[in-house]
Amino acid sequence: MTDLSPVYAYVDEHADRMVADLQRLIRQPSISSANLGVRECAELLVEMMGDVGITARVIETDGLPVVYGEINSDRPEAPTLLIYTHYDVQPADPESDWESPPFEARRVGDRIIGRGATDAKGNLMAHLKAVEALRATTGLPINVKFIFDGEEESGSPSLPAFVERHRDLLAADAALSFDGGFDAGDVPRVSLGTSGLLFVQMRAHGGSKDLHSARARLVPNPAWKLVWALASIKGPDGRVRIEGFYDAVRPPTPLERSLLEQAGWDDEAQKRDLGVDEFLGGVSGVDALEQLLFTPTCNIAGFASGYVGEGNKTLLPATAAVNVDFRLVVDQDPADIFQRLRKHLDDHGFADVELHDLGSIEPSRVPADSPFARVVVEAARRVYGREPSLRPSESASGRQAVWLAGKLGIPGAGTGIGPPDWRGHAANEFITVRHYLAGIKYAATIWSLFGEG
Amino acid sequence: MTDLSPVYAYVDEHADRMVADLQRLIRQPSISSANLGVRECAELLVEMMGDVGITARVIETDGLPVVYGEINSDRPEAPTLLIYTHYDVQPADPESDWESPPFEARRVGDRIIGRGATDAKGNLMAHLKAVEALRATTGLPINVKFIFDGEEESGSPSLPAFVERHRDLLAADAALSFDGGFDAGDVPRVSLGTSGLLFVQMRAHGGSKDLHSARARLVPNPAWKLVWALASIKGPDGRVRIEGFYDAVRPPTPLERSLLEQAGWDDEAQKRDLGVDEFLGGVSGVDALEQLLFTPTCNIAGFASGYVGEGNKTLLPATAAVNVDFRLVVDQDPADIFQRLRKHLDDHGFADVELHDLGSIEPSRVPADSPFARVVVEAARRVYGREPSLRPSESASGRQAVWLAGKLGIPGAGTGIGPPDWRGHAANEFITVRHYLAGIKYAATIWSLFGEG
Repeated sequence: MTDLSPVYAYVDEHADRMVADLQRLIRQPSISSANLGVRECAELLVEMMGDVGITARVIETDGLPVVYGEINSDRPEAPTLLIYTHYDVQPADPESDWESPPFEARRVGDRIIGRGATDAKGNLMAHLKAVEALRATTGLPINVKFIFDGEEESGSPSLPAFVERHRDLLAADAALSFDGGFDAGDVPRVSLGTSGLLFVQMRAHGGSKDLHSARARLVPNPAWKLVWALASIKGPDGRVRIEGFYDAVRPPTPLERSLLEQAGWDDEAQKRDLGVDEFLGGVSGVDALEQLLFTPTCNIAGFASGYVGEGNKTLLPATAAVNVDFRLVVDQDPADIFQRLRKHLDDHGFADVELHDLGSIEPSRVPADSPFARVVVEAARRVYGREPSLRPSESASGRQAVWLAGKLGIPGAGTGIGPPDWRGHAANEFITVRHYLAGIKYAATIWSLFGEG
Repeated sequence: MTDLSPVYAYVDEHADRMVADLQRLIRQPSISSANLGVRECAELLVEMMGDVGITARVIETDGLPVVYGEINSDRPEAPTLLIYTHYDVQPADPESDWESPPFEARRVGDRIIGRGATDAKGNLMAHLKAVEALRATTGLPINVKFIFDGEEESGSPSLPAFVERHRDLLAADAALSFDGGFDAGDVPRVSLGTSGLLFVQMRAHGGSKDLHSARARLVPNPAWKLVWALASIKGPDGRVRIEGFYDAVRPPTPLERSLLEQAGWDDEAQKRDLGVDEFLGGVSGVDALEQLLFTPTCNIAGFASGYVGEGNKTLLPATAAVNVDFRLVVDQDPADIFQRLRKHLDDHGFADVELHDLGSIEPSRVPADSPFARVVVEAARRVYGREPSLRPSESASGRQAVWLAGKLGIPGAGTGIGPPDWRGHAANEFITVRHYLAGIKYAATIWSLFGEG
């Protein structure tokens, strides 16, 4: 591989300015849930990308804008890498919980404290500085395309339509996310998948208004209807009874299983954190982690009907609603599961239960031994001098690089550069200068290794 | 029977004053749910009872006070009748819905409009005026004891303990309620039973706090637990699966069934009112009325867990609670059903579902051909010149005379004197002067017939 020591030296030499630029980005609020400062932040980014030679622009979506940029290598055969991260941040309230104002980006020792310091402005800025360092030294080894999401903290609702609309623009050889950070023990993490999601609401109706509960002898109760419908969908054994629900589910490969075994899962720490004595099905150890990452579920996220509260209201409710979310795994298709659920309801006597699709995200998983995954892992080894934690999937759902790669039919992976316990979504989020500067080198190293194929 | 024409004539002669006294009582608010004017109304009643010769006093309960009174006949062999009604009223809000202020007791034509005009101050005052009219003319044919409840509109929660504590005081040969009024078509109603009630809350717990729903693969969901527990309690066929639940249920006697056939049940009017196309189980006509009055039920009155509302919260709830009310029929015992429900949960894998008793009322029903029921029916025929509607039971639950009779081991019945559509619990509640004066004669006639055995 090209000797990257000039790149690393450039980063170290220009550390103060690189930190100052990150502080400038953090100081521009960009809270997507409140649409606060998002557009201003997008415009600031276009300016900062231009400063390092990236051709950038704001592209409108159905929601908040995407910042898109590209820069090409001088090398004619260079592959193209699509980098995904986001410039929006979580709300900072209550601000009183912060030791310094959330958008001040105050530096305290090695820490830069601020909302978005790691998630994902530190991650994002590492790319811009990698471009600068490479161009100033060894040259850019690959073509890079950037897609900076403005709605990640709100679930990236506009991304699917954006990707459909800009398929040609996004054409690349691989996709990589930079978001989040290190595991406990300062272990870098590489993620190769996310869970899918199908979120639905089921609604049932009884009489035309809430009635005296004595009338329950004659008038159907919508809460009972949902109880029976739900009980038909999943039994106390935890198995989902929708026909074909598990058909597409793939078990972990031997390599994925071995990765789980290396993951350092700690039953007792997890149980303490979750507040339970035992995991569902009585699983423990690596089996528990496999259950968390490789099995789909069907969860009641909310059930609302009638009245539960002060005072004894014995009423017959007119309506009942239940929110159910399915966490899906590859290769389950949310649209297919929705259809199967509708058919299940129809076939089991619940044709009159309304079913509303509240949103979905496709699951994604790439093979742990894919060449691109090996590139990212190798880069982590070289920069951090240790073996990264390779996660075959995440339990949660999201539309980041692995999802994007699935959409575009290319390899994908996700990683991040924030320090352990970087307090994402909480007060006093921070990044350390050390992790930030190492992150710039990490990005440059991934690109170089990728450029060499 | 004694010729009651002097009694009736006395009522007619003193009509204006009798109406004025009712207005005076209505003008004293006595809203039990807000404890507004209740004690003042109790003291006013003691005064008004003294005015007609009744020895009366306020007796404390665990809640709001009972007004108790008694007056004896001169006849040595006279039986004793215990009269139950209540002096508390429903709230009057919103007052803007009233055509005259709810506590003004304004007379408009034949109507006296006011909160409590029928329910139950008109009913109550009919007794006091019957005492006056009988004493001024033919003499009191029986001994009468009065128990005027101050918490009926709040479910009479203190009455069971009150009855236990004052069993000797309440000793009587029969119990009679005066509450409510006439059926549509100006048909007087006589009621011989009420439903029982068992109201419980079931609660389940999952993790120590609401969690990300991805954790549903490892952490039990309390809403699912309640769904499965509920589904084990009652299936889509509507049958309650608690062992022995139906053991004590008695079908209607041939006489009771014939009363249902005479009740004038109107399927279409009921369906319109309830907002349904069909009754549960597809029943219709007299079978529907029998289902309403003679079968117990198990109703979900409220289900609350997690979040259902704006924004897509895919959470794993920490807790779930469901309120369930059972309407019971004779001879089901709420305490027994509670124990059976607890055992059912334990036996079906739900030992960790908490069960809380939120309150209960025993069902009550007296035979339709009991001598006391025949007395009340005969009095209605004589005063109103028509056949009353004889209800073997009511669908709702309450602690009125039939319940009281069950507690005391004596015959009981309930009736009322308000005009059809008297707007109980709603705005513009009223009684007519005609129904009020007839009601005084009705009370006197029941007493006279009862006195003759």
